[in-house]
Amino acid sequence: MQRYFLDEAYQPQDHFVLEREAYHHIVRVMRMSPKERVYLAFNDQQVIIAEITEITDQAVYLVELAKENMQKELPCQVTIASGYPKGDKLDWIVQKGTELGAHAFTGFPAATSVVKWDAKKRKKRQERLTKIAQEAAEQSHRQVVPQVTLLETEKELYAQLDAYDVILVAYEESAKQGESSRLAKVLKEIIDNNHVGCRILAVFGPEGGLTPQEIVTFEGKGGILCGLGPRILRTETAPLYLLSAVSYQLELL
Amino acid sequence: MQRYFLDEAYQPQDHFVLEREAYHHIVRVMRMSPKERVYLAFNDQQVIIAEITEITDQAVYLVELAKENMQKELPCQVTIASGYPKGDKLDWIVQKGTELGAHAFTGFPAATSVVKWDAKKRKKRQERLTKIAQEAAEQSHRQVVPQVTLLETEKELYAQLDAYDVILVAYEESAKQGESSRLAKVLKEIIDNNHVGCRILAVFGPEGGLTPQEIVTFEGKGGILCGLGPRILRTETAPLYLLSAVSYQLELL
Repeated sequence: MQRYFLDEAYQPQDHFVLEREAYHHIVRVMRMSPKERVYLAFNDQQVIIAEITEITDQAVYLVELAKENMQKELPCQVTIASGYPKGDKLDWIVQKGTELGAHAFTGFPAATSVVKWDAKKRKKRQERLTKIAQEAAEQSHRQVVPQVTLLETEKELYAQLDAYDVILVAYEESAKQGESSRLAKVLKEIIDNNHVGCRILAVFGPEGGLTPQEIVTFEGKGGILCGLGPRILRTETAPLYLLSAVSYQLELL
Repeated sequence: MQRYFLDEAYQPQDHFVLEREAYHHIVRVMRMSPKERVYLAFNDQQVIIAEITEITDQAVYLVELAKENMQKELPCQVTIASGYPKGDKLDWIVQKGTELGAHAFTGFPAATSVVKWDAKKRKKRQERLTKIAQEAAEQSHRQVVPQVTLLETEKELYAQLDAYDVILVAYEESAKQGESSRLAKVLKEIIDNNHVGCRILAVFGPEGGLTPQEIVTFEGKGGILCGLGPRILRTETAPLYLLSAVSYQLELL
């Protein structure tokens, strides 16, 4: 069943009205008719099942049938911070990361990032990535659409670090040295201390990795270096491992 | 450091010799010189660090410096069975799945698979996927290159099921119904019973999912239906979640 995100909080109403993009999608793309059903996801994470009652030239009218009661969001808010990688890898990180439950994505120019994006290019990419996140959120039945932010400087990322409860730094050298328990330790502490809603930032370098200087800076701000198993993961694969591990530990175990 | 797979078991030797493809890669692609070092990975999972001593017109000669002692393979052999998906999604499953430690990949025509590959096309795809697995195994420092097999019929897959100790079937309906503990239960049993080397088959449907009839057949052969968290994952994302969860449970916890 199709899912539409509304940029408003849920309030019981006789009729819900969809216009513009959602209207276009329901009427032109999905070619739906009255009596068909969709999910409406509000920006306060409330989701309802709604039935179409009428379709006019400009609007789709729906009535609420039931609330969707299942919790689809990770118990912790995980933000993925990726040093700008090459090509369209960020597209993949955002699409797959949204499916796997990321709360937000932050791109930043790491020391070894090869791509250089000016303000115009960043704005365009951010719009494109936001659209990818929205589509993936609909497809994977999320309750929120992850926010995508592309930073101009790495300093801006450093300035935001205090906003997080836990900072994880994926570090290839940790994997090479066989470090294998720090991630599990952190996630188990989150459970033991019942830190639901805890804000986690997970930092990933680009293809060339993070430099010793960057590592020192993150560690100085409380960043925890952690390996993600003994194999060397590509820059676009590592965030997916981390999100899967968070889900497995906090949702399945 | 570059990694080369040799299709032979490790035996101590005064000199190791690389020819053909590996020669080409070392000399033409990497432009290496004597004194530079590489990993040599043998087909019995032994890996050594070797130094180049001489490069001739046809061969690279190397001496062993040390053994690589770290275990890079998952404690269990996980085979990913994917119902043929659309486009180049199988490429992604094989590349990312190899990084994440899959032991082998089996493609099969599921009831809802849209693509139809004849014997010639299958052979070509299998060669291409084998190359992708080899490159990903080198890049992620694996000890073995996963084998890729593309089946002509789903019956062939059913006939192989007895060869596995555990059959997991990723089932979207399990996710929708909030089933959330079966995967964790199975993986913890593997640990509790010290089933190192245990052979796991993980089955994933194509975009359209597995049909009730397919589900019944897998269940009849002992398949365990399991959800992968409350979000709906695409056919190419679900195997990555499973492999990450196996690694997290068996290698990190």
